[in-house]
Amino acid sequence: MTYRFRDLLALELLSADELTFLLDQSRHFQAIQRNPLKKLATLRGKTVALAFFENSTRTRISFATAASRLGADTMNLQAESSSVKKGESLLDTVHTLNAMKPDCLVMRHAASGAADFVARQLDLPVINAGDGTHEHPSQGLLDALTIRDRKGSLANLNVTILGDIAHSRVARSNIHLLTKFGCRFTLCGPAMWVPRELESIGPPGASIRRVFRIEEALEDADVVLVLRVQTERLHEPALSAADYILLYQLNAQRFHRAKPDAIILHPGPMNRGVEISPEVADGPQSCVLEQVTNGIAVRMALLFLLLVGGSEESHDEAHLAAEVPEPRNRRSTDPKTDATKDAKKDPSHASR
Amino acid sequence: MTYRFRDLLALELLSADELTFLLDQSRHFQAIQRNPLKKLATLRGKTVALAFFENSTRTRISFATAASRLGADTMNLQAESSSVKKGESLLDTVHTLNAMKPDCLVMRHAASGAADFVARQLDLPVINAGDGTHEHPSQGLLDALTIRDRKGSLANLNVTILGDIAHSRVARSNIHLLTKFGCRFTLCGPAMWVPRELESIGPPGASIRRVFRIEEALEDADVVLVLRVQTERLHEPALSAADYILLYQLNAQRFHRAKPDAIILHPGPMNRGVEISPEVADGPQSCVLEQVTNGIAVRMALLFLLLVGGSEESHDEAHLAAEVPEPRNRRSTDPKTDATKDAKKDPSHASR
Amino acid sequence: MTYRFRDLLALELLSADELTFLLDQSRHFQAIQRNPLKKLATLRGKTVALAFFENSTRTRISFATAASRLGADTMNLQAESSSVKKGESLLDTVHTLNAMKPDCLVMRHAASGAADFVARQLDLPVINAGDGTHEHPSQGLLDALTIRDRKGSLANLNVTILGDIAHSRVARSNIHLLTKFGCRFTLCGPAMWVPRELESIGPPGASIRRVFRIEEALEDADVVLVLRVQTERLHEPALSAADYILLYQLNAQRFHRAKPDAIILHPGPMNRGVEISPEVADGPQSCVLEQVTNGIAVRMALLFLLLVGGSEESHDEAHLAAEVPEPRNRRSTDPKTDATKDAKKDPSHASR
Repeated sequence: MTYRFRDLLALELLSADELTFLLDQSRHFQAIQRNPLKKLATLRGKTVALAFFENSTRTRISFATAASRLGADTMNLQAESSSVKKGESLLDTVHTLNAMKPDCLVMRHAASGAADFVARQLDLPVINAGDGTHEHPSQGLLDALTIRDRKGSLANLNVTILGDIAHSRVARSNIHLLTKFGCRFTLCGPAMWVPRELESIGPPGASIRRVFRIEEALEDADVVLVLRVQTERLHEPALSAADYILLYQLNAQRFHRAKPDAIILHPGPMNRGVEISPEVADGPQSCVLEQVTNGIAVRMALLFLLLVGGSEESHDEAHLAAEVPEPRNRRSTDPKTDATKDAKKDPSHASR
Repeated sequence: MTYRFRDLLALELLSADELTFLLDQSRHFQAIQRNPLKKLATLRGKTVALAFFENSTRTRISFATAASRLGADTMNLQAESSSVKKGESLLDTVHTLNAMKPDCLVMRHAASGAADFVARQLDLPVINAGDGTHEHPSQGLLDALTIRDRKGSLANLNVTILGDIAHSRVARSNIHLLTKFGCRFTLCGPAMWVPRELESIGPPGASIRRVFRIEEALEDADVVLVLRVQTERLHEPALSAADYILLYQLNAQRFHRAKPDAIILHPGPMNRGVEISPEVADGPQSCVLEQVTNGIAVRMALLFLLLVGGSEESHDEAHLAAEVPEPRNRRSTDPKTDATKDAKKDPSHASR
Repeated sequence: MTYRFRDLLALELLSADELTFLLDQSRHFQAIQRNPLKKLATLRGKTVALAFFENSTRTRISFATAASRLGADTMNLQAESSSVKKGESLLDTVHTLNAMKPDCLVMRHAASGAADFVARQLDLPVINAGDGTHEHPSQGLLDALTIRDRKGSLANLNVTILGDIAHSRVARSNIHLLTKFGCRFTLCGPAMWVPRELESIGPPGASIRRVFRIEEALEDADVVLVLRVQTERLHEPALSAADYILLYQLNAQRFHRAKPDAIILHPGPMNRGVEISPEVADGPQSCVLEQVTNGIAVRMALLFLLLVGGSEESHDEAHLAAEVPEPRNRRSTDPKTDATKDAKKDPSHASR
């Protein structure tokens, strides 16, 4: 049986089986990254629209490279030089892009829920490349792929997240994915950045605890996910950079509290010497560069599945046949409730 | 007989037959936009230089996508990050691009006449993608294609333009094109934006009238072209945005004055709720998204004709044979007079 | 015997034979610039990363076009919209790019030695597209190619450089290359811009003299290289633009002092009317546009040699077989000494 996704909006919406399927698919594309020639013809003639309403370097380049390695062309919209500045609504901007007939839209936006809102309005696949503080699903997948490669399995790991978890879509995507495999989370950072609500993010019964001393938080960890500190946000918990380093930096001494074979992830760009010390960032247990390489593989898999995944013929052509037990519809939440909620976000929605 | 264009600088210079030919050619490329695979190999190995000295999102992406769907590569110059900032003259910049041997130059510039000036200096085809308040010929063509598709013909339509017509290259290109098919124009907006000179833009005998009440202007219209209001220009007619909305916004109530099957065009990006109400913008008589899709088709046709249109062989290869009654030379104005005029625009010209 | 380069960092490191080899290779790619179809499949499936940490128009477009004409894809990092702004270290940025598995890195950076530093850390070929005031080797090569085409040989020419030589990486690359062929240099400009240290740049015995009167400096010149005046730097020698024009502009009257068949080079963008008069810039002895065209050829040759040059098979496939007497290792300086020096440039290096 063939598996169909239309969009990739949030890992929260996917089951453990579906997530496993996505990670398994990505393995084919990991292999391609080791070839001298990495380019496939799979998506030749297709166009991937990249609409980044927030600045991004690595995610944009990663998606563009993934598209290019599949043989697709890209359409690039960057907010700085765009109609967005001229006051055009988000919906008009994406409808305009859509009218140029791309085959897929990859979008990043500062508003939580933006990708979901857009996906409901357009008749083309949407990949959420980060929406506000909500989710960054391709990052969650590449993190999980990296963890699975190093640990052999995602089952029952102790995962510690350090930093500004409240504002982190990366943290949320990791929690939604990994709790489905029985991982236990320890969240650590200044209290303002680790609010109580985070304990109930995961599915019922998920183990998510808050700890405010980094030494305790690292105890027995299998995976440590270090978040980037945005120094312009340090005023919230009223900390100086020096305070943060003193209290929360992951350094070699602290990292010894974790399991001997623990690994370190960071979504980048790193603030070396702030949230992470150089010796740890560059040590053998750090996976930051594997994460980047896996990012291309995961994004190739996503583009492949959303653009041709449903066609048996295309599968054969690309030698990437995929079988999973059950097809699944896109979303199980009540569309009526959601439409009402969305309508509030954009005045143009009401009249559609 | 084969038709040859070298450049596309202004619709004013083209005859009704030539315009019809361009629109007919665009139909082939409209069909391609409906294919699952939209990419041709027609221009493989060719390079299209895109030089945008003014910000643009949709026009730049549209030309880039058109080039890519024909198999061409692009060279991108954007003014913000360019030598232009370092004081290089326009002519040196385009001579430099030309020395990299592109096959065509698409350019936008804030100075009226810039594309024409450049085309006289370079030995490669130039497409004007908007020059000051002069013309935006590919926009005029895509508007006409959209109108012809909806109305069956361009003959004898009543066309109303709303807004800042004085500063609009889109309005000028539409007037130059549609008056050649006998369309009658009604221009409406604040008096400062609809000066008397506009009445004599078209060919001798063209019907162009100015009307200052929107209700009267819409009476019996077949086509309503709504221009974007640049809110930073509202100080000229000394209007607030609220005044403009009250006096000139196209809303459902006013639109009822037009013919029952009237259509609405807008070059985008729209200021929803300012020059156009959402219910009208999103209604079935609005063609704004068809315009965008047709933009790709028109630009593919232009690139095709300018880059390979003269070669029978290429025509056959691309299955896009074109026949029109008469070949035509590029321009009939006196080059000497024009060169003198141009020389004033750029000091570097004198010495050439 | 096959010649292998891993990087192109500085012309200072190359012998006259190696430089001749590079120029000879470029001739194949000059021929391609005259073809109606300029695109090869040589690097199909390869990716060239372009990392410009300093603004650039022509060099970036030139490398991108060179890559594209060889069939390669590009990955684009521009400093303005990048993680660099978020405080990421240079080394982390290039390690991240490298983890996306490009086949080559072309980089420009404001720090002298940056490309060399990066090349030591990464396992992929690096081309220096300009590092501070150090070198701009592809510019030196394209200048030499242009001179050799016009003069028949590089041997024993009198070369005059005019302008801010102290800050010019272009001047340095030209001096390093041309002195190896016995060229004699005359450096001329305001005294602050032509410090005594420049006399000892070249290899032992090289003829480099400083002259402060332009008329004397041009006497008997075969080649005049005019550098761009950065008007924001005129305060250093305490000159107004008018002073500079009066004292140092290359105009027709002064140019008569040079040999009758002397040629003029300028790396662009030109400040017409400042360092060079329009009549000279546009005259038949000016090579500025040939330089631009040759830039594509040189960069295609470099990308070809670094990406596939070592493989006999690839050579045959591309019909670009190259033979030179001796293979050569990358660098002869003591790596330990250099590493110590480099470590000072970036704090992150110490921990590696």
